[in-house]
Amino acid sequence: MEGFGVHTSMWTMHWDRDGAARTIPAAASYGMDFIEIALLNTATVDAAHTRALLEQHDMRAVCSLGLPQESWASVNPDGAIGHLKDALDKTAEMGAEALSGVTYGGIGERTGVSPTDAEYDNIARALEAAAKHAKARGLAFGIEPVNRYENHLLNTGWQAKWLIEKVGADNIFIHLDTYHMNIEEKGAANGILDARDHLRYIHLSESDRGTPGEGTCDWDEIYATLAAIGFKGGLAMESFINMPPEVAYGLAIWRPVAPSFEAVMDKGLPFLRNKAQQYRLI
Amino acid sequence: MEGFGVHTSMWTMHWDRDGAARTIPAAASYGMDFIEIALLNTATVDAAHTRALLEQHDMRAVCSLGLPQESWASVNPDGAIGHLKDALDKTAEMGAEALSGVTYGGIGERTGVSPTDAEYDNIARALEAAAKHAKARGLAFGIEPVNRYENHLLNTGWQAKWLIEKVGADNIFIHLDTYHMNIEEKGAANGILDARDHLRYIHLSESDRGTPGEGTCDWDEIYATLAAIGFKGGLAMESFINMPPEVAYGLAIWRPVAPSFEAVMDKGLPFLRNKAQQYRLI
Amino acid sequence: MEGFGVHTSMWTMHWDRDGAARTIPAAASYGMDFIEIALLNTATVDAAHTRALLEQHDMRAVCSLGLPQESWASVNPDGAIGHLKDALDKTAEMGAEALSGVTYGGIGERTGVSPTDAEYDNIARALEAAAKHAKARGLAFGIEPVNRYENHLLNTGWQAKWLIEKVGADNIFIHLDTYHMNIEEKGAANGILDARDHLRYIHLSESDRGTPGEGTCDWDEIYATLAAIGFKGGLAMESFINMPPEVAYGLAIWRPVAPSFEAVMDKGLPFLRNKAQQYRLI
Amino acid sequence: MEGFGVHTSMWTMHWDRDGAARTIPAAASYGMDFIEIALLNTATVDAAHTRALLEQHDMRAVCSLGLPQESWASVNPDGAIGHLKDALDKTAEMGAEALSGVTYGGIGERTGVSPTDAEYDNIARALEAAAKHAKARGLAFGIEPVNRYENHLLNTGWQAKWLIEKVGADNIFIHLDTYHMNIEEKGAANGILDARDHLRYIHLSESDRGTPGEGTCDWDEIYATLAAIGFKGGLAMESFINMPPEVAYGLAIWRPVAPSFEAVMDKGLPFLRNKAQQYRLI
Repeated sequence: MEGFGVHTSMWTMHWDRDGAARTIPAAASYGMDFIEIALLNTATVDAAHTRALLEQHDMRAVCSLGLPQESWASVNPDGAIGHLKDALDKTAEMGAEALSGVTYGGIGERTGVSPTDAEYDNIARALEAAAKHAKARGLAFGIEPVNRYENHLLNTGWQAKWLIEKVGADNIFIHLDTYHMNIEEKGAANGILDARDHLRYIHLSESDRGTPGEGTCDWDEIYATLAAIGFKGGLAMESFINMPPEVAYGLAIWRPVAPSFEAVMDKGLPFLRNKAQQYRLI
Repeated sequence: MEGFGVHTSMWTMHWDRDGAARTIPAAASYGMDFIEIALLNTATVDAAHTRALLEQHDMRAVCSLGLPQESWASVNPDGAIGHLKDALDKTAEMGAEALSGVTYGGIGERTGVSPTDAEYDNIARALEAAAKHAKARGLAFGIEPVNRYENHLLNTGWQAKWLIEKVGADNIFIHLDTYHMNIEEKGAANGILDARDHLRYIHLSESDRGTPGEGTCDWDEIYATLAAIGFKGGLAMESFINMPPEVAYGLAIWRPVAPSFEAVMDKGLPFLRNKAQQYRLI
Repeated sequence: MEGFGVHTSMWTMHWDRDGAARTIPAAASYGMDFIEIALLNTATVDAAHTRALLEQHDMRAVCSLGLPQESWASVNPDGAIGHLKDALDKTAEMGAEALSGVTYGGIGERTGVSPTDAEYDNIARALEAAAKHAKARGLAFGIEPVNRYENHLLNTGWQAKWLIEKVGADNIFIHLDTYHMNIEEKGAANGILDARDHLRYIHLSESDRGTPGEGTCDWDEIYATLAAIGFKGGLAMESFINMPPEVAYGLAIWRPVAPSFEAVMDKGLPFLRNKAQQYRLI
Repeated sequence: MEGFGVHTSMWTMHWDRDGAARTIPAAASYGMDFIEIALLNTATVDAAHTRALLEQHDMRAVCSLGLPQESWASVNPDGAIGHLKDALDKTAEMGAEALSGVTYGGIGERTGVSPTDAEYDNIARALEAAAKHAKARGLAFGIEPVNRYENHLLNTGWQAKWLIEKVGADNIFIHLDTYHMNIEEKGAANGILDARDHLRYIHLSESDRGTPGEGTCDWDEIYATLAAIGFKGGLAMESFINMPPEVAYGLAIWRPVAPSFEAVMDKGLPFLRNKAQQYRLI
């Protein structure tokens, strides 16, 4: 997990043979160092096929997910462990380097009240088991705080750090996302400062999840802070312009936030890359 | 609706005699030009009592609300009309100047898919009737776009302008909120630019709804654009540090976003006021 | 003066036949709407040659200058008038639309004390005569406030407005420059707000005069305010990467502020143009 | 040099008995951790008197200066050494902790061309001798890059780092200034990133040297980067609202950049302090 990559939602949200065959060469044509694959359904994934394509295009990969409701770690830690082990196995089979995302719960999980000790205890148990499984597979394992509407459990870098220390595993990393930070953190940099000891991955996502450079995210502050803490992890551009209905509710996507795929790739991508170069992050 | 005010959630979310008696003198002691009263339950309001206190403290007022689920305008326009008429009557009885907020739907209303023509037709019918009722009472009537998670219906200034033009009433105004704009608009100023013809009220709320000046909102850009369009409406500070459970789910409030009431009033309030003076908005 | 243009210092600071022949086709190849020609020495200008090239490439032009020390308007208004009339004549002969810049004094003019009434009276007399001459030639005539180090006379948009009102001519416009505004104005937008009634031209110049998008200028705030005031004038990119010694002292250019011409044109130009499009300024 | 301090220009630019007696209690009344004393003329300083006042008010101090033209290090290194030794002796006698500022040249020194190797060699010789003298007195010794107009020699954090490494002394620190950084650095954070290994002191000065919080400096980005590099040095507020004629030319101060002393102390100071606390820098 290093260099500049992209979330594959730009090309597909269904990681089957067709999705992989369309995405990996396309990402390579934009000079990406890695891709992030959304593991919504491991059953559709042909791991050997993906692995071959990744090798053919000299492309690295990271997988990500949110847990389905029947396996939310806060209430069903054993279900979560089973789901995560399956996803970790598939991640390893594809030759990807890490599994991350909302690995501790659901995208859209909200009880309506503050998180309880019991919820965190369950989550910690699931993460401990998953981290152990990841280590045995040679994988890194991440947790991504998301904004208050997508989850009541982990909203900030500080909370993610606290949870990692509660679990005590040495191979869980923090995965931040500028879109969520823009809502939750006190200043664009604060989540980075709080998460710094464990930060290995960051989603570069604009404030409306549209074209990077056209929203309210303060990219200079974000990149400057990453440079200042000596960040060496992966920078993954993420824009959501093409979402299937089954994830639209949790992500609350009702209108196109960018005019086109081309607007993101031709304006947003050079913007993010130029600025990452300015701060010598890539 | 002009000058610098504050949402009364800083003191109470229950507008009964106790809440009013605690809030109005307190707001006056901070030199507020007006207060915004959340009309969650008109039955608890003693309008004559509030009117007397407002007059006593030379304080102006605006009321705001979101519709309860049984009266969402998108599916039950007649229910919405009844609810809004009741709230407008109470607003007038209290001597307040306007009713605004999520007057077109629920805080937390989400179908999971994009808004439909049928939903907007129902909403337009409800707003038309409410605007007419407001005019008869001498009240202004506003609609507040909120972020994608709080509502799938109106998320941007552009959408609010479109809806007002669809309704065709001449006394509906747009009520923006910097917290929602920070998530939805392409740049801090864009919602203001789109809404300018109808903009008469704005919530000054930090990116995390905590202490103004400590988040990611670009206050210079916001105030500069307000000054540039010649904004003459109300500036209302809003921080949510004290929410009852019945609204916490929709607003997704799980943790204290400011350390204390004092932090908001002693740091956030002078910050917002000084900057508003710098741009000659107050 | 409308659309998106570029200062010709990107190609030459000597506007002779060679400079013009190199610059005009180059600017056209980047799709510029207009160029700004530095009239450092009218004697070297072949006006008919420039006019033919401009027509051939369907390119519009604006001229700019600073007064030479022997003709500073503050102390030698008649000398300034003579210099400006000559420059206006050449501007008209070339088929350019306006003369602007530090038309009221020298780049580097500083007495060491605050401007005096006598200095401003002299300047007002020179500007009045020049504006009259410009009107007779069908030209617009501008004044550009510059930072405190380049001039003690006009540093802010407010001062420029004051001076125009003192002169009383109806064809003097204000020409702002984001580089100078970044030093002198209270917020990126303030000079625009103060100058709005007379603002027809703006230099888009980064905080270090290097590659636009890589400095401290707040481009969203600048463009948003321009959009909000309904700005219809010319947007001229200006980067100083190639300055002859005779202007280096006044401009204080000691080191390359951009790595190359290509960095400015391939990174800075798309950055400025994309953002101008986002705010519908071009 | 740690904590939050203020440049004494807020009270006096003449450090004699009167100036000291007026300033030290005043700074103490604002809760400052230290003051910065401008050593424009060591002859007027009563060191024992200052030392007693500092001890009485439990106040720490730093001294700063620019070299007079007859002692510019670039052309007269021996003169510079003499001047610096005298200033260092006075600094030590007052009980101050460091001497810093434009210790390598003049405020306003400009040859009109890029710095030469010969100039830097002379400067390095002077700094080496001064640093040795400072070490013998138990003092830290700093160099402050300033903007291109105030000096052609050191404009950026990168250049300051380069010069320190050229000198090779281990007790020279970098002293940055946000006002100069705003003009010279590629982003508010870049000078901090380049200077980080030697950075021990920073002037917090607004973009127009007026009221902090009312200009174009990006304070979140500045403080966030300081927090991210683990900055432990002194934060010194600097506003120039009260300058004697002998320094006005070099600093190019022609108009009041803040309405009053009170505006800076009552608005600017709380703004800077609140934000420094937000980033846990004080």
